[in-house]
Amino acid sequence: VSAAAAPAVWIDGRVADAVPALDRGLHYGDGLFETIACAGGRAQLLGRHLARLRRGAERLGLPVPQEETLRREIGVALTGAPDAVLKLIVTRGSAAGRGYAYPARQPARRLLLRYPRGAQDPAAAGAGVRVRLGTLRLGENPALAGLKHLNRLEQVLARREWSDPGIAESLLFSSGGALVSGTMSNVFLVRGRGLVTPRLQRCGVEGVMRATVAQLALAAGIDFHEAELGPGDLAQAEEMFLTNALIGIHPVRELADRELTVGALTHQLQGLLAQHLAAEARDG
Amino acid sequence: VSAAAAPAVWIDGRVADAVPALDRGLHYGDGLFETIACAGGRAQLLGRHLARLRRGAERLGLPVPQEETLRREIGVALTGAPDAVLKLIVTRGSAAGRGYAYPARQPARRLLLRYPRGAQDPAAAGAGVRVRLGTLRLGENPALAGLKHLNRLEQVLARREWSDPGIAESLLFSSGGALVSGTMSNVFLVRGRGLVTPRLQRCGVEGVMRATVAQLALAAGIDFHEAELGPGDLAQAEEMFLTNALIGIHPVRELADRELTVGALTHQLQGLLAQHLAAEARDG
Repeated sequence: VSAAAAPAVWIDGRVADAVPALDRGLHYGDGLFETIACAGGRAQLLGRHLARLRRGAERLGLPVPQEETLRREIGVALTGAPDAVLKLIVTRGSAAGRGYAYPARQPARRLLLRYPRGAQDPAAAGAGVRVRLGTLRLGENPALAGLKHLNRLEQVLARREWSDPGIAESLLFSSGGALVSGTMSNVFLVRGRGLVTPRLQRCGVEGVMRATVAQLALAAGIDFHEAELGPGDLAQAEEMFLTNALIGIHPVRELADRELTVGALTHQLQGLLAQHLAAEARDG
Repeated sequence: VSAAAAPAVWIDGRVADAVPALDRGLHYGDGLFETIACAGGRAQLLGRHLARLRRGAERLGLPVPQEETLRREIGVALTGAPDAVLKLIVTRGSAAGRGYAYPARQPARRLLLRYPRGAQDPAAAGAGVRVRLGTLRLGENPALAGLKHLNRLEQVLARREWSDPGIAESLLFSSGGALVSGTMSNVFLVRGRGLVTPRLQRCGVEGVMRATVAQLALAAGIDFHEAELGPGDLAQAEEMFLTNALIGIHPVRELADRELTVGALTHQLQGLLAQHLAAEARDG
């Protein structure tokens, strides 16, 4: 749990602190979200966040808010608080009655929450983090796989498996036994000269940082691919790192009591990512 | 979608129309719900509803509201509106920060929504309903199986597969191919002289009406069991019916264009259920 300063909240562009009790996000988890790192008044990787939101909305049949509206509201939220974490939630609006069916063109509702951006932990990015193996298995559903949707009870249950603040993350497997991700991050493994990350057709979230790292790796000529991975692949990994939009790339220095090296490929990708974000900030 | 009269809403016992924007029910679907049929100022099967809520809360580590408080608030809600549908939602309250972790004793938040109870459809209970086979497969997760939790995107997606108002329900299978339930009901099959319903250790909701019908069947000496069922079992079923707290028992008269008989065992159980609910209303 992050620092408990109450976030600023806007609903459909207006300052607000509550959502209608009939919201389908509350009743069914019927919606999507994005968690966006902001620095210097700029929302990082915003194009990727908005594209993922649009893809998710298409899959759920959710009318996606206008990109121009979202960009304007994000700009307003960052005024006077240039370094922040924005959480954008888009739900299918209020239910017209009971039941799962929804009207064809129910307008979406958008919530924008602005949290303070905690200080970055340089040790986590440098020396790396300690990671455990989760017990809870993720259910497999291709209809929801990849989406950053609001049905997150699996992550809540997986996160309660540990309370040691020295452990940064838990790696999770699917009900079928495949490696998927952390509770709030994607995972990459380095083997030989190659980089690999789990395929996410059955469960997991297609992280915007995962896609960014994949793009940077391919552009740099690194042998990268997605694959079906299992416990054996974890055992064979020489380097390992976690990604998400807030942490960027965090090397794993210890996995379930096995020590790992923070290696050359991880450092190379951290450097490429820093350049990429700097260029984005410079060039818009 | 039911008739669109706005429900009356109470939050933590007070009339309200909105929930705090940080509610973990909205952010993660971190909570449970009950849908309760009420007639003559009485909440039907309330003991079972409250027991299921308590069991679910234990599994999620959610501090369950006092049963006495819930009963009192339900009584208030039914004053002046004796025939209603109550939806009780219990969430893990507001998030203290970002992230899936939750404080050890975060108080729960309770929402009580009172909807008008639509007229019962005598044809559905008598001649039976038409049912289709769903395409979406339900993900399997024993940690969530049985619970009536707020992660209902699978049901939302399954419900949008049809719009024909002549179709009452869709039967769903798990990712592993097992028959589970409808989108909003449990299912029972009759074969020979026996009654069977899907086991729900990997997915599905343990309906209070499902448990009631099971109890009535066993008390009447009917051969009843739970089992792993597949498409072949559907093909062999001689009678079939759906249950939930609002519909009671609805015979299936047509499954994916195959006609079924509304048979003796279904009629017997409908009679036993009517007696059971009448006795509950009489004896308290």
